[in-house]
Amino acid sequence: MTKRPTIHLKSGEERRVLGGHPWIYSNELQSGPELKAIKPGTITTLRQADGKPIGLVFFNPKSLISGRVITRDHSLEIDVQFWRRRLERALKLRERLIDVPFYRLAHAEADGFPGCVIDRYGDVVVIDVSSAGMDAELETLSAAIDALLSPRVIVARGDGPARELEGLEPLSRVLKGNLDEPVEVIENGARFLCDPRAGQKTGWFFDQRDNRALIARLAKGAHVLDAYCYMSGFGNQALKAGAEHVLALDRSAPALEFAKRAAEINGHAARFETRMGDAFDVLPEIAAGQKRFDIVVADPPAFVKSKKDFHQGARAYRKLARLAASCVGKDGILMLCSCSHNMPADELIKQAARGIQEAGRNARMLYHTGAAPDHPVHPGLPESAYLKALTFAIE
Amino acid sequence: MTKRPTIHLKSGEERRVLGGHPWIYSNELQSGPELKAIKPGTITTLRQADGKPIGLVFFNPKSLISGRVITRDHSLEIDVQFWRRRLERALKLRERLIDVPFYRLAHAEADGFPGCVIDRYGDVVVIDVSSAGMDAELETLSAAIDALLSPRVIVARGDGPARELEGLEPLSRVLKGNLDEPVEVIENGARFLCDPRAGQKTGWFFDQRDNRALIARLAKGAHVLDAYCYMSGFGNQALKAGAEHVLALDRSAPALEFAKRAAEINGHAARFETRMGDAFDVLPEIAAGQKRFDIVVADPPAFVKSKKDFHQGARAYRKLARLAASCVGKDGILMLCSCSHNMPADELIKQAARGIQEAGRNARMLYHTGAAPDHPVHPGLPESAYLKALTFAIE
Repeated sequence: MTKRPTIHLKSGEERRVLGGHPWIYSNELQSGPELKAIKPGTITTLRQADGKPIGLVFFNPKSLISGRVITRDHSLEIDVQFWRRRLERALKLRERLIDVPFYRLAHAEADGFPGCVIDRYGDVVVIDVSSAGMDAELETLSAAIDALLSPRVIVARGDGPARELEGLEPLSRVLKGNLDEPVEVIENGARFLCDPRAGQKTGWFFDQRDNRALIARLAKGAHVLDAYCYMSGFGNQALKAGAEHVLALDRSAPALEFAKRAAEINGHAARFETRMGDAFDVLPEIAAGQKRFDIVVADPPAFVKSKKDFHQGARAYRKLARLAASCVGKDGILMLCSCSHNMPADELIKQAARGIQEAGRNARMLYHTGAAPDHPVHPGLPESAYLKALTFAIE
Repeated sequence: MTKRPTIHLKSGEERRVLGGHPWIYSNELQSGPELKAIKPGTITTLRQADGKPIGLVFFNPKSLISGRVITRDHSLEIDVQFWRRRLERALKLRERLIDVPFYRLAHAEADGFPGCVIDRYGDVVVIDVSSAGMDAELETLSAAIDALLSPRVIVARGDGPARELEGLEPLSRVLKGNLDEPVEVIENGARFLCDPRAGQKTGWFFDQRDNRALIARLAKGAHVLDAYCYMSGFGNQALKAGAEHVLALDRSAPALEFAKRAAEINGHAARFETRMGDAFDVLPEIAAGQKRFDIVVADPPAFVKSKKDFHQGARAYRKLARLAASCVGKDGILMLCSCSHNMPADELIKQAARGIQEAGRNARMLYHTGAAPDHPVHPGLPESAYLKALTFAIE
């Protein structure tokens, strides 16, 4: 059996982790010079103060989240077979839930991959790593993915604040094959091309799959405004479901190019229009005109990136709700989304309700939905259910 | 124009109602002997302290909720045409959302029917009234329903604590036609018979329609345990979708008779088994045996009926989660529901997670869903989103 370094919890600090929580914070550990010597990301045996083993964790002395539980069985080898078994279980669940091989294959802690998500685009697999532990396991993980799925391409990427908190540099590596072309995504019957090397996150936001289907079910004959459209997942799927016309709005020219290309390959380019600009500039302009939409979707980037942004972010959601509601026609539909971890659902509902009221409109909330089920939530981390989508009928 | 009694808000108390909230509490009104003289349920003009009219409300001096806003336009006549317009709007929304005429046609405040829900079973309409105001409007409302839908039968019913709080006696009246036979419900392709005269609420719980569809999508080949099954909406729809076998559990013999009859008319009676008993007795018995289920649904009555029951109710949800998880086989599904207004979602998730962990099982939460969209939420009353359904993948 592999000899591993050991870290000890302070007395009485074992309760949360024994209750199933996947993280150990730095202040819960007994400190000592030997801790500083452990390389970030090392697989370490976690013990109670009395020496009783609790499990194996990725240890990172540089992070506030110092331990990320890998398994409660400290006797296991963490090798290709170990990750392959986890991948198999994750795959089985996705295959039960989604009928095409385009999904989030593994969603971090919830699927037993601490600080790591894996998205599958058919025969292309993209790993997004934000913990030092999974960063150190990347070759092993890649071998496990290869053993299970034999994909044509495996790439790894990672950037942003989560990696910084772990003391990691930005990551962009091709682990298998070559990724020279955009990759295809099929979602709710519509086709898209996306670029995992240059796009946001791994290239596509699978978390909105069910919310896009929800809008598509309401879209027959509708004029749809897709604000913050990225590749217009909402808009293109609405057109596929019989929408009359879509106006897709985004600040990013490359995103709009991908959105247009999707409209072309789905054969509805004639009913698809794009507009480059910021929603906070364009929506007031639309509201000032005559044209109204049967359905407006507003799926902005996170307005509340950290707790200190809360009040400013809350005001931004309220303003967006007001502007978006102003563009909805009589008896239309508004979907307002938030992917801010730090924006609780009840607060978002409150801000949306106020914004809609400020637009002089009455509303009924029809749906309050979250991320698609290939983004499961770890029961010990309910706050990781970051995505909220509120769907209103607007009078 | 109809001459109406007037009530005045205290100075400064207009803010919430001007912000869209549909209720006025007794302590927000200027008191006076003339208030006591107003008959409960009378349509009354609500004014600010300075005399400015705010709208029309149902006034009930006997209730803590003394005013229920009908409309912000105090010049309107509240007559058959008024209710018909509201019904038309509610109907249009349902026809857009649901492809068969079996749904909640009007969901209280959210649809502009204060303290009143209306369920539609094809050509049978059932009104459930819990406010003195709508009680007094019953004949007018019935005429409006008749003018819009010409149903064969209109019945009104109402009992329980909400009516008591309004000072109302239990209600059971046939307003049009005769209701001699059980009525048919078609939901997600399965057929049911129910009895609006004797069943719970209006006879059927439409709020679970989408959650039943969610379970049905996962049910192919599955052995399903439907606990607190009532007429086994979950179980029968799972069988219709290809489940191998359903065990439907309820304490009520009449409910189980309706459940069996549904299994017969859907042609899958051979795969449908019932068991009469309390889940807290039967689930431990199942857990002690060998048989495990691919899917377990537990949809109990509200365990938290009032705030004082909170801790006891929370423990009951936790215990139910533990017992239900113990009956789930490897890589199975558990759906735990709560229709308790006083059980917040985050608390339910916490109790469910603890219960599942106490059963020695790991879990991922796949879905956190609510009531179907024919039960819209008034933006001013987000707490009225009472139904929570948590769906877990259980290792």
